[in-house]
Amino acid sequence: MKEVLQKVKEASRVTATLKGEVKRKVLKEMADALEKNASVIINENKKDLDFAEKNNLSAALIDRLLLDKKRIFSMANALRDIAALKDPVGKVIDGWMLDNGLRIEKVKIPIGVIGIIYESRPNVTSDAAGLCFMSGNACILKGGKEAMHSNIAIINILQDVLVNNNLPKEAVSLLPDYSREGVYKLIQEDKYVDLIIPRGGEKLIKFVSENSKVPVVKHDKGLCHIYIHKDANIDEAVKISVNAKVQRPGVCNAVETLLVDNDIKEIILPKIKEEMEKEGVELRGCEETLKIININKATEEDWNTEYLDKILSVKVVSGLDEAIEHIQKYGSGHSDAIITENYSISEEFLNKVDSACVYVNASTRFTDGGEFGFGAEVGISTNKLHARGPMGIDDLTTYKYKIYGNGQIRK
Amino acid sequence: MKEVLQKVKEASRVTATLKGEVKRKVLKEMADALEKNASVIINENKKDLDFAEKNNLSAALIDRLLLDKKRIFSMANALRDIAALKDPVGKVIDGWMLDNGLRIEKVKIPIGVIGIIYESRPNVTSDAAGLCFMSGNACILKGGKEAMHSNIAIINILQDVLVNNNLPKEAVSLLPDYSREGVYKLIQEDKYVDLIIPRGGEKLIKFVSENSKVPVVKHDKGLCHIYIHKDANIDEAVKISVNAKVQRPGVCNAVETLLVDNDIKEIILPKIKEEMEKEGVELRGCEETLKIININKATEEDWNTEYLDKILSVKVVSGLDEAIEHIQKYGSGHSDAIITENYSISEEFLNKVDSACVYVNASTRFTDGGEFGFGAEVGISTNKLHARGPMGIDDLTTYKYKIYGNGQIRK
Repeated sequence: MKEVLQKVKEASRVTATLKGEVKRKVLKEMADALEKNASVIINENKKDLDFAEKNNLSAALIDRLLLDKKRIFSMANALRDIAALKDPVGKVIDGWMLDNGLRIEKVKIPIGVIGIIYESRPNVTSDAAGLCFMSGNACILKGGKEAMHSNIAIINILQDVLVNNNLPKEAVSLLPDYSREGVYKLIQEDKYVDLIIPRGGEKLIKFVSENSKVPVVKHDKGLCHIYIHKDANIDEAVKISVNAKVQRPGVCNAVETLLVDNDIKEIILPKIKEEMEKEGVELRGCEETLKIININKATEEDWNTEYLDKILSVKVVSGLDEAIEHIQKYGSGHSDAIITENYSISEEFLNKVDSACVYVNASTRFTDGGEFGFGAEVGISTNKLHARGPMGIDDLTTYKYKIYGNGQIRK
Repeated sequence: MKEVLQKVKEASRVTATLKGEVKRKVLKEMADALEKNASVIINENKKDLDFAEKNNLSAALIDRLLLDKKRIFSMANALRDIAALKDPVGKVIDGWMLDNGLRIEKVKIPIGVIGIIYESRPNVTSDAAGLCFMSGNACILKGGKEAMHSNIAIINILQDVLVNNNLPKEAVSLLPDYSREGVYKLIQEDKYVDLIIPRGGEKLIKFVSENSKVPVVKHDKGLCHIYIHKDANIDEAVKISVNAKVQRPGVCNAVETLLVDNDIKEIILPKIKEEMEKEGVELRGCEETLKIININKATEEDWNTEYLDKILSVKVVSGLDEAIEHIQKYGSGHSDAIITENYSISEEFLNKVDSACVYVNASTRFTDGGEFGFGAEVGISTNKLHARGPMGIDDLTTYKYKIYGNGQIRK
């Protein structure tokens, strides 16, 4: 493993100083190569599908694994989209001159070697490779074991393009070891790996966070809240809540808990019930809620649960303070919204709720790199440091100071 | 410990939204209180000094421990300097509007709870507390056991000021446990602590990096290089090298290894020898160097050593590539300089050397928050992520996105 990582590190020194035009050319050639070799990928993908079927993996998992021509062409187009992004490397983010004439520039540079650990979808392999490459990084990817054949086929195609362009193929690498042990070894190598991004289940993220010597940017759970304040526009509040729950319930920026102001509970709860049930949402309420609408009872566990499903817990709160307290206690610091027409209350909510994204009068579903206009998305960070919230290609860089002198010495 | 940390977390929610004028007032009162209670601190400091003497601690350590009136007044003035800094909280660092009318603001906010682990100097206690407070963070400080009485006295004085201002005293806290075990417990508590900054010896930093579940910003070693290219101004090269070595040899931004271009070795090495020996510097050279000047022989270990002393290793290199290769292999990514009048070579060095600070024609000694104009300094980060190089108060913040809508839902 060390030898592999050493080569990836060496490759990262090459990718770090590539010109934007070279990176774009390579990415477009990678896209063409994926399309040209679609049948190779589909054949290898069949092996993964066969394995999955033999081992009775779920239909949902098999669907995530499946690659057909359409999906491969959309992978290729994702690479073309990445090739069209603004190159973040070299951007001067600050600069000034000292009294002694030293000129300082703070400049964006690639991070180096990025390890990305993810699960079954093989399209992540080319997306992640493309994003890392465009931002001047080398990457070492660890996909799911169940997608092994597909991932190897994809990486081989991408590496051929690198070699044809006289670039080190290790700039886009797969971890040679698919075991949990392999992940453990990877996250110990802080000499060769500069950042680990784990995307996937809670267990994987916990394992990586607890054991990594390499800095980690997590893509963890989203337990998002909407607080409907007493001065909310009621129709808007219902519309936003339904959208945040049902537009795509299985993702991290969907709402899981609705906090309803005591003053408007009688008006709004029946409307919430009617609209949510139309959409097939199961509601679970606190005692106060149950006095007004006939739904299931929420337990303590419900406030802690990211359902990722058409289930919503509902709690009546006495006002802003209790709402914030609830969010601080149970929230995951991902995305939380308030619905209100009250200016001061909205300001207080925005300032006091310490989540990556805080909203007034909008659906939490907008926490997304694409929606934010970042182009292709690395993911949504639940870290507080380095990158927070939707991560674009810009967040795959760090910075250095360039200092231009003419003989300055320290006195 | 958990209970203490929980209170610090709660305090951090209060400090996070304090107005700048309140923070400045409190810091100035803290400065006054330190001066007014100087005799209390000196008395408690005597206990630490007695303990140090009884246990035969080194004279250097005892000097670092010592607090007299002058040092306490300078601690107070450091707090006044911090109170005069620009408040980083609330700064809008980016902002844009989406097609659907959602208005996004990326705003600087405090990190939350910052744990700082340091060694003997008790003045760090008030400096660190002041920097964290001004940036809206709560802090939990772990100083050296040998400075325990002094630190407790200082913190009590600072906490009294907080209480007099109706602020939670836990905003500025000392870790109640001075053992290594105590540090271990602290760095496990990622629910309550948002960032750990270890400052000190290599062993401490390694222990923290390897065991922390909380993100770490290290203040690790600086193994800095100066490469004298063949097109260097020779006099300038000698002057800068001597300054970088002797102006203050015991600090991380002092140079440890000189790389000399083969083409100019005969001209420059005798001058280096003469000027360095005038300053009492011991030189250790590679074989090529020894052919020209009569100095001690450098071993492989020398290239890996941060002397923090008047010792300098010298190596002859064939040109830019070998110089960069040496820096990549042995450097610590802190500060590295090239001396040259050649434009293209200087550009290549600045772009390819992946250190926090890369210099042309200046002493590495400028890698310093004060010199950079950051005001009071948190330290010099050797991390690649979050904060790199000199850390000012700005680096004690993270950001969140505030999103202002008027009923937007995701389609």
